[in-house]
Amino acid sequence: MVSDDKGGLATIEAYVASLEARDWDGVDCLLHADVVYELPQTRERITGREGLRAFNTAYPGDWHLGLAEAYADEGAGVARLDWDVTGGETGTAIVFFRFDDGLITRITDWWPEFYDPPPGREHLVERY
Amino acid sequence: MVSDDKGGLATIEAYVASLEARDWDGVDCLLHADVVYELPQTRERITGREGLRAFNTAYPGDWHLGLAEAYADEGAGVARLDWDVTGGETGTAIVFFRFDDGLITRITDWWPEFYDPPPGREHLVERY
Repeated sequence: MVSDDKGGLATIEAYVASLEARDWDGVDCLLHADVVYELPQTRERITGREGLRAFNTAYPGDWHLGLAEAYADEGAGVARLDWDVTGGETGTAIVFFRFDDGLITRITDWWPEFYDPPPGREHLVERY
Repeated sequence: MVSDDKGGLATIEAYVASLEARDWDGVDCLLHADVVYELPQTRERITGREGLRAFNTAYPGDWHLGLAEAYADEGAGVARLDWDVTGGETGTAIVFFRFDDGLITRITDWWPEFYDPPPGREHLVERY
């Protein structure tokens, strides 16, 4: 799964495809051994490739990921993912990456949730 | 505030700086007249430059924005912003853009919130 192209976009595409395929060796090949994975909304952190593999393989549900859009340069980038769980929820994930020599050194996952808008601005917006 | 550089990164930088400066004319100069602004988490939408200006100028609180990182090409891009309200909250905003001939045609704002992690994975992560 590892592309010869060391560009960040190719790495992001390979990362999402490997996760979706449950190709855990493929994922590992994209990660620096000391990769840091963070979930800022819950303030959770995992350090190291083995720990992230344990987290990913234990993640519950028949989840699926699709790459909606991505932007990157050699050193960093970001992806917007559409996710769904078979028979369950759907949503958006936004993932920021840092790269070093073609390997992912940092992943920051955001999982924004739906909520009700604050009152008082109904006249300024439409709902969809 | 409008850069001669039609690149997406310059447009993003000018957009954030103009908002932070409350330079509403400067913001307008960056926007297509028919810009579409969406908040997917609340399913709110504003269509048109005038409507977005009305929304922005009515937004409560002494808010401040800083550009943390951004990635873009000619047609689209994304920015991560640190925001705070004087005397109040702080947080992260993630903003996706579409561009046409140097003008912003679409803005999609995500405002991810903190939440408690699901139980059962305490042994796989650390908290920070």
